[in-house]
Amino acid sequence: MPGNSFGELFKISTWGESHGEGIGVVVDGCPAGLPLRESEIQKELDRRKTGQSKVTTSRKESDQVRILSGTFKGKTTGTPIALWVENQDVDSSKYEEIKHLFRPGHADYTYLMKYGFRDYRGGGRSSVRESVGRVAAGAIARKLLARQRIKIIGYSKQIGPHIAESLDYKQIEKNIVRCPDKKMAQKMVDHIVQARKKGDSVGGVVEVVAQGVPPGLGEPVFDRLDADLAKALMSIPAVKGVEVGIGFTAAEMYGSECNDPYTVKGKKIAAKTNNAGGIHGGISNGSDIVVRMVVKPTSSINKEQDTVTVDGKQAKIRVEGRHDPCVSPRAVPIAEAMVALTLVDHLMRNKLSQLK
Amino acid sequence: MPGNSFGELFKISTWGESHGEGIGVVVDGCPAGLPLRESEIQKELDRRKTGQSKVTTSRKESDQVRILSGTFKGKTTGTPIALWVENQDVDSSKYEEIKHLFRPGHADYTYLMKYGFRDYRGGGRSSVRESVGRVAAGAIARKLLARQRIKIIGYSKQIGPHIAESLDYKQIEKNIVRCPDKKMAQKMVDHIVQARKKGDSVGGVVEVVAQGVPPGLGEPVFDRLDADLAKALMSIPAVKGVEVGIGFTAAEMYGSECNDPYTVKGKKIAAKTNNAGGIHGGISNGSDIVVRMVVKPTSSINKEQDTVTVDGKQAKIRVEGRHDPCVSPRAVPIAEAMVALTLVDHLMRNKLSQLK
Amino acid sequence: MPGNSFGELFKISTWGESHGEGIGVVVDGCPAGLPLRESEIQKELDRRKTGQSKVTTSRKESDQVRILSGTFKGKTTGTPIALWVENQDVDSSKYEEIKHLFRPGHADYTYLMKYGFRDYRGGGRSSVRESVGRVAAGAIARKLLARQRIKIIGYSKQIGPHIAESLDYKQIEKNIVRCPDKKMAQKMVDHIVQARKKGDSVGGVVEVVAQGVPPGLGEPVFDRLDADLAKALMSIPAVKGVEVGIGFTAAEMYGSECNDPYTVKGKKIAAKTNNAGGIHGGISNGSDIVVRMVVKPTSSINKEQDTVTVDGKQAKIRVEGRHDPCVSPRAVPIAEAMVALTLVDHLMRNKLSQLK
Amino acid sequence: MPGNSFGELFKISTWGESHGEGIGVVVDGCPAGLPLRESEIQKELDRRKTGQSKVTTSRKESDQVRILSGTFKGKTTGTPIALWVENQDVDSSKYEEIKHLFRPGHADYTYLMKYGFRDYRGGGRSSVRESVGRVAAGAIARKLLARQRIKIIGYSKQIGPHIAESLDYKQIEKNIVRCPDKKMAQKMVDHIVQARKKGDSVGGVVEVVAQGVPPGLGEPVFDRLDADLAKALMSIPAVKGVEVGIGFTAAEMYGSECNDPYTVKGKKIAAKTNNAGGIHGGISNGSDIVVRMVVKPTSSINKEQDTVTVDGKQAKIRVEGRHDPCVSPRAVPIAEAMVALTLVDHLMRNKLSQLK
Repeated sequence: MPGNSFGELFKISTWGESHGEGIGVVVDGCPAGLPLRESEIQKELDRRKTGQSKVTTSRKESDQVRILSGTFKGKTTGTPIALWVENQDVDSSKYEEIKHLFRPGHADYTYLMKYGFRDYRGGGRSSVRESVGRVAAGAIARKLLARQRIKIIGYSKQIGPHIAESLDYKQIEKNIVRCPDKKMAQKMVDHIVQARKKGDSVGGVVEVVAQGVPPGLGEPVFDRLDADLAKALMSIPAVKGVEVGIGFTAAEMYGSECNDPYTVKGKKIAAKTNNAGGIHGGISNGSDIVVRMVVKPTSSINKEQDTVTVDGKQAKIRVEGRHDPCVSPRAVPIAEAMVALTLVDHLMRNKLSQLK
Repeated sequence: MPGNSFGELFKISTWGESHGEGIGVVVDGCPAGLPLRESEIQKELDRRKTGQSKVTTSRKESDQVRILSGTFKGKTTGTPIALWVENQDVDSSKYEEIKHLFRPGHADYTYLMKYGFRDYRGGGRSSVRESVGRVAAGAIARKLLARQRIKIIGYSKQIGPHIAESLDYKQIEKNIVRCPDKKMAQKMVDHIVQARKKGDSVGGVVEVVAQGVPPGLGEPVFDRLDADLAKALMSIPAVKGVEVGIGFTAAEMYGSECNDPYTVKGKKIAAKTNNAGGIHGGISNGSDIVVRMVVKPTSSINKEQDTVTVDGKQAKIRVEGRHDPCVSPRAVPIAEAMVALTLVDHLMRNKLSQLK
Repeated sequence: MPGNSFGELFKISTWGESHGEGIGVVVDGCPAGLPLRESEIQKELDRRKTGQSKVTTSRKESDQVRILSGTFKGKTTGTPIALWVENQDVDSSKYEEIKHLFRPGHADYTYLMKYGFRDYRGGGRSSVRESVGRVAAGAIARKLLARQRIKIIGYSKQIGPHIAESLDYKQIEKNIVRCPDKKMAQKMVDHIVQARKKGDSVGGVVEVVAQGVPPGLGEPVFDRLDADLAKALMSIPAVKGVEVGIGFTAAEMYGSECNDPYTVKGKKIAAKTNNAGGIHGGISNGSDIVVRMVVKPTSSINKEQDTVTVDGKQAKIRVEGRHDPCVSPRAVPIAEAMVALTLVDHLMRNKLSQLK
Repeated sequence: MPGNSFGELFKISTWGESHGEGIGVVVDGCPAGLPLRESEIQKELDRRKTGQSKVTTSRKESDQVRILSGTFKGKTTGTPIALWVENQDVDSSKYEEIKHLFRPGHADYTYLMKYGFRDYRGGGRSSVRESVGRVAAGAIARKLLARQRIKIIGYSKQIGPHIAESLDYKQIEKNIVRCPDKKMAQKMVDHIVQARKKGDSVGGVVEVVAQGVPPGLGEPVFDRLDADLAKALMSIPAVKGVEVGIGFTAAEMYGSECNDPYTVKGKKIAAKTNNAGGIHGGISNGSDIVVRMVVKPTSSINKEQDTVTVDGKQAKIRVEGRHDPCVSPRAVPIAEAMVALTLVDHLMRNKLSQLK
């Protein structure tokens, strides 16, 4: 029940801090018999890694993963899979200087209020570095999904005012902002670079599509698939909103526009349109699952801001150090991981819905 | 683990269907010693009730609640509180006629895919009638919050293209759409009435504000307060998106605009602005909690739509019967209940964060 | 997480008190498509009922069960099944007289310490009457087990010093102590009747055998099948010990006696002996599951005992009223229900152990 | 929900196998602000260690623990505490030779049936080596209990036919079987040594007493303190029975003997006797908590036994290697750890029973 686990049947428990010994995750509930190598997990971690381009932080994390338990002769045994990534290139000196100040937009103040005490080195547990564990566990989830021909595709849908218009999935990993619209990608990059020059940061929207999800996933009335996806994405640092399908545009629509009429394709029943984003009544309907999350601009900025000291005195702060000027590009693999983890959990839960 | 419970320490489990014996909820984890009368629960149920105005369904549900367990001499005993509301004014005949058709936008198809079998009377378990249990349990949660001077205020922020500009909380319960902007309320009513005349329906946005929430609520890294609120709201039927604070507008902001700088008010540390909606790093910061959800237009419309039969044949459907042309006004007390339940749960969880 | 739910996938949540409106249970997680009638549940409740013979209390409870939700056209729908048994023949007057006294052996003092307040009528929630919900839910579990040809058989193994020597299952329901040894049954009855005459009570041992359980049930390392059975049985009021297979006699054995060597029967691998009670390493091995629990003598006795008042003054108490002089016979269906619930839960959990 | 976690609020998740990279545990829910050093955990691990005397296995495990997360400047931060003990002195060669045989009494057959595949090196996950994680986490639990002046004392109550008569706690750690009765300790040692000479093994009973437990712990009706203790102890490998207080002797008692009458000691209400083992109605009553578990003789014996091969052919097996001829002495710190973990969890849960 404490807050560091996610999932009911395919359960992950993450541990570790930004500037501690490392980041780890224990995956409990993975079925026995799945072939699993470290390199498969590494591949996903490499996509999340820092220091990749001019739009990400220059902190260099090699992020080498080790499988410490749960496999034998290259296959999962059904017992807990422990994964560990040691921290490297850790420099806490900058944080010693500002440890008496609350960084605006960060969790410094709230962690202190909650725990009465905090690890101020690099945000400690509240750092986005914690997502290493999610992405590592997500790699296992993706392997399980691939067996069912389910595919997860994530990308930057929007950065600043620039919104992707075309969705050419092949473009995504070809540009440094992970945008499926080649033209717009360049505008996004420019937007980020300009903000960085001013010591500022920008926000964005990440969209994730899951293809091949069978109908039936989701456990009403509370553990609906959309409700669990909303929690999964909103649990990522810096996320301030989540949508499914048409999302907030539904407010201005009429029912006659919004409903997705059914039709027969081949011999299969299917919805003609996908305003619902693949989910009706909290259960997948066989269409693509489409979800979006908005990521706020990075809180760490190299501009002077008002704040207060731990003793309650007015002060100024400028957060130097190595930070992503826009989190969106690196948030893509994290969002994909959370969607993958949610889907695997619901695939397993759905095995129990009917007799035989 | 099955999906009909919500909350970890203040846990509710709902049961019942639209056209069955009734709707019930078991509240487990309510501390002993809380004064509780049926009339206090009834008050909230009456706000959710149907048949209240020209913008709601004409189904007349008296929705009388009974406390079946968990209290003694007017106080809670610390044991499970069972609440029951018998169904009345049930008319299933309309559903017999269309039981072989999947209503577009509804959960008919997905429930059948999931369970291989479904109660087609009034949507069965997928009906918004299930929310009776949530609102009843929410009334107990609100009593607990009131003891901590925490107040929950919900309202229609938007209906169709009409967005509330002023927030005069006293107006909310004075108009039938629960809008805090008197002028806009009238436009919202007109919008709904016009859609209804055409047999159509409209969507809207509900906003909920929680005042007086102390800093410290939320359990990183997965059970963040915002993540749990997102799940709570997204679990309400017809909701397609959830935002906290600035929400999706964060995509177009700069960090220097978006961060909430700290200041000292009186002798207390507080954020100057509230773009974060009262939550940093998944933990409440002492500012008002501000969340929003979008409700899609009611799926049941009195217009001909394409669909298919259970046997996979193309067909037409027109959903007659008594339906809300816009769910927003009645969704307000449901959203408030879900926010209240989430906050009580996190208040209890936070008691355990520190030694002593 | 509050304590009134049992099971992970087939989850029951009970509510209600001895002298309140009734006893209820919500079963969440029952697969869709199971035929279910009230009469099938009633049959099990009738076995638990009071007023059946000279060795049970004379309180007359008709214990009529109603299914309030979760079925449609005689089949489960996959949604929560709510069951309700109204209380009848309730007489709280005797409890008003002793409400200021702590009954020795009962939970009066501990409930007051825990909750600061208690429903003193008939023990409130701590009454064995609460087991109505367990037996009702257990009847559904037994139906699911029967589909897998798993059979649960319970009986009084010991009452006072009298231990059943022969195990003739056909005898069990033919005598009022539910003993499989006809001769010993009579001695047990005499033992109880004699104690009752003196205003005293006696203890006993209930044994439950589960036949036809496939190998593979149990989730190491904590949710072992034996660990969950131990919890299930120890959660029944008045139980002070639980054993699996040889149980405490293992202390005096040698490994060469205790190990169950494997052999081949037909073409199946099987253990030659069953000292393990069907469980190795927390996982069922295909042999019969054999568990036992000891039930202490009923705490309510019509003899003067020392106690103290709620205000901490020394006092005497004699607990009049209608009580079972020995709980064992009526504990048999309760123990069976708890074993059945545990097995169904683990059958469902085990579906997820391997890929495909 | 998968089976490798224990506890609701103070939750531990263990991972690792006998002959893998090591054994780890993640403790989630430990309150912030607890001073914690590796040496404090090491102290408990050293008590569990092998190679200590002629009655334990000769496998030499140094079992050095590392704290990988969750502390800062010597105090817990409220975030997950990851502990890791690397495996050393691992020799899997003996297991390669018998990998095609099911060792009688072990979990070889059941793990294969459950997972379709197993790590046969040293029992893999089913090895008692897994208890390293329990004892490490238990050391933290004990620190929390010590702050409430709660003390946990465990010892060998019985080995073979030899039962401790006197309970002189100072003797416990002075003899190699951890028996509080000096004279009996010698008989127990002789009994074990003789069995070892014959290549055989013996069983025993471990008793654990918790002093200073306040009244109020336990969450009826399922998460009773005794029920959770029963599960905790029964989840330890080789345990076949659990008792609270008088345990199975209750079957032969009368209510007038068994009830614990109340009296006033000083100004406090207390039970005169402690047949209940400190628990009434599933809630602690302020008396010492007294629980017992029986440990079967070690399954690995150096005698020829019947078994079958993985392919279902009759065979003989003799399990050579380094094994404890009696698990009881080393099971003492494991049992203590499980009791400590259960009590801390219930101390935290009980904070929520009453308003304020």
